[in-house]
Amino acid sequence: MDSTERLKEKGIRPSHQRIRIYETLASTKAHPSAEAIYKELSEELPTLSRTTVYSTLDLFAEKGLAQRLALSGSELRYDADISRHVHFRCRGCGSVSDLAAVRAPAPPEAQEGYVVESSQFYAEGLCPACSSRLDP
Amino acid sequence: MDSTERLKEKGIRPSHQRIRIYETLASTKAHPSAEAIYKELSEELPTLSRTTVYSTLDLFAEKGLAQRLALSGSELRYDADISRHVHFRCRGCGSVSDLAAVRAPAPPEAQEGYVVESSQFYAEGLCPACSSRLDP
Repeated sequence: MDSTERLKEKGIRPSHQRIRIYETLASTKAHPSAEAIYKELSEELPTLSRTTVYSTLDLFAEKGLAQRLALSGSELRYDADISRHVHFRCRGCGSVSDLAAVRAPAPPEAQEGYVVESSQFYAEGLCPACSSRLDP
Repeated sequence: MDSTERLKEKGIRPSHQRIRIYETLASTKAHPSAEAIYKELSEELPTLSRTTVYSTLDLFAEKGLAQRLALSGSELRYDADISRHVHFRCRGCGSVSDLAAVRAPAPPEAQEGYVVESSQFYAEGLCPACSSRLDP
């Protein structure tokens, strides 16, 4: 399925800017912030505003086309991989990666009265590069 | 164990400001932000600075005296309950509560080369008050 179809399938009008934002997000494993996506696209799309990037990524998260990740010590990050998986934030270099070998827990069963819409499991520590640098 | 002993046990010099910050955090289930703790203490401790509150809470998190919680759409929150438990953020009112009935998963086993120091599992959705208000 191409990006246009993917946006339509989620009920999102596929404007050119939205398509390029989605493609940029989907092309990387770096879990970029809105600011990083804006910087990557601002030369190609000179009329693109920061506000549009922020609101578009939030729209994607709301419609289930991307995950919004809150991790300590960093701005919000986004991920076009909407499968359930575990994220890892390195406190050395700030990078965010997938812990692919670890199985993510199922969303919690809600307690009485709570409506659970999403869940996140993430770990923090040192990535391979930083752990060998800091603790050889 | 009183607060002074608890700080000492974790290797933190128990200044009066640090003790009061710890006691304020430990007295609530609201998972306050640094700003909220500053506001609560600023009248009682007129020489207390925002910077001190922020750095003290980060020191507590580093030394294992508190948990630092990153949850989407909100500033960092802190919790003096360092037991493993699941947090819930309501997108209606922004409150952060414990999902006491849900068991938190164990920290992930690290992949080769990664050093896992902490992990968080949290859910988002609507709390009982907001879910009955928005969807009666």
